[in-house]
Amino acid sequence: MAKLVLIRHGQSEYNLSNRFTGWRDVDLTEQGVNEAHIAGQNLKHEGINFDYAYTSVLKRAIKTLHIVLEEIDQLWLPEYKSWRLNERHYGDLQGQNKAEAAKELGEKRVHQWRRSYDVLPPKLDPNDPQSAHQDRRYKNIDPNFIPDTENLKVTLERVLPFWTDEIAPKLLNDKNVIVTAHGNSLRALTKYLEEISDEDIPSLEIGTGKPIIYEIDHSLNIVNKKKI
Amino acid sequence: MAKLVLIRHGQSEYNLSNRFTGWRDVDLTEQGVNEAHIAGQNLKHEGINFDYAYTSVLKRAIKTLHIVLEEIDQLWLPEYKSWRLNERHYGDLQGQNKAEAAKELGEKRVHQWRRSYDVLPPKLDPNDPQSAHQDRRYKNIDPNFIPDTENLKVTLERVLPFWTDEIAPKLLNDKNVIVTAHGNSLRALTKYLEEISDEDIPSLEIGTGKPIIYEIDHSLNIVNKKKI
Repeated sequence: MAKLVLIRHGQSEYNLSNRFTGWRDVDLTEQGVNEAHIAGQNLKHEGINFDYAYTSVLKRAIKTLHIVLEEIDQLWLPEYKSWRLNERHYGDLQGQNKAEAAKELGEKRVHQWRRSYDVLPPKLDPNDPQSAHQDRRYKNIDPNFIPDTENLKVTLERVLPFWTDEIAPKLLNDKNVIVTAHGNSLRALTKYLEEISDEDIPSLEIGTGKPIIYEIDHSLNIVNKKKI
Repeated sequence: MAKLVLIRHGQSEYNLSNRFTGWRDVDLTEQGVNEAHIAGQNLKHEGINFDYAYTSVLKRAIKTLHIVLEEIDQLWLPEYKSWRLNERHYGDLQGQNKAEAAKELGEKRVHQWRRSYDVLPPKLDPNDPQSAHQDRRYKNIDPNFIPDTENLKVTLERVLPFWTDEIAPKLLNDKNVIVTAHGNSLRALTKYLEEISDEDIPSLEIGTGKPIIYEIDHSLNIVNKKKI
């Protein structure tokens, strides 16, 4: 039986200023750093010996991983970062204040962009200096696969190959895996793992800095789930 | 022309207490953490866009890398950790105070163990709880290759395959590489890179937290070397 631990990063600067974040590479706040330490300390009590660590290419998730690994004294683990674990891309909303966007673009519409499973927010111009198309960390990715906007459905579609090709084989091989990522990339993964319907997924919340521990059997079924 | 940056980790707890460290996984001191931040800040002025980051499986080098990558805002880089970049294994001397060892075992002998190129210190018992043979981070390594003691010659022999198979191909491909490691694994690598003789290598010192920047051509010759 393998263990899979998912952790959503702690508070970021944009969480604090109530802005849409998405692929913007903003830092953790001091509170976010503290949340990561507490997550690591709580995880330490579980005594899990991990074999692999995964995270996104965004610093708020990477730093959360490093803090947690330091707390559990497993900094030496092989660590693999992928854009596929990035937060949902929020299109042209990225960087905008959520309340101001609601006022400007309509409350109902913004709510739908935030919560519906398959409505897409307006695209970010690929020529915008803030676009991932202009960022060298994404230069090895087929540009057709670099998103300009995403809903949770599209996020799930790009997270899944990472699950299938990287994480699932490790679990099938009885390896314990830790993943630090983002609210929506983890909601997408959870939707798949727990077979949550399109109708039910909008109400799923994943708390920041609260490790979720799954025990997974050799058919990749969840045998146990625990939040700490 | 590719760039290769080597950084020796800052002060560790055992540096402070004047003990032989080797493969003991001791932490950085507060001063060591500061040295890493300064190394990163100095490196930032060079404006190098790295492609790959390498370090050992020992936390003092790993934390140094993470601090430097954060300072240069390149935490997203692919990072690969290997036992081959570990500090020289100091055998049964690991954990002993250097002054006390000199008193107990003879000043001349201890000096020879520390400085000669090919004299081996006494072995650490593989059954010792502190031996790498008892540490799960080394469980995927052929036990015949897990050292019980090393001189600089043996250290170089196990560092070189990592150079050849991992780092050199990246440089040949015009990728910029950052390596954080240890006094003796970096002395070994430098001996090879700069073709330093067995007679001259004992006097080579590599400062803690001082990045060394090499420019490397397509025949893997050093075109320029700069310490910052």
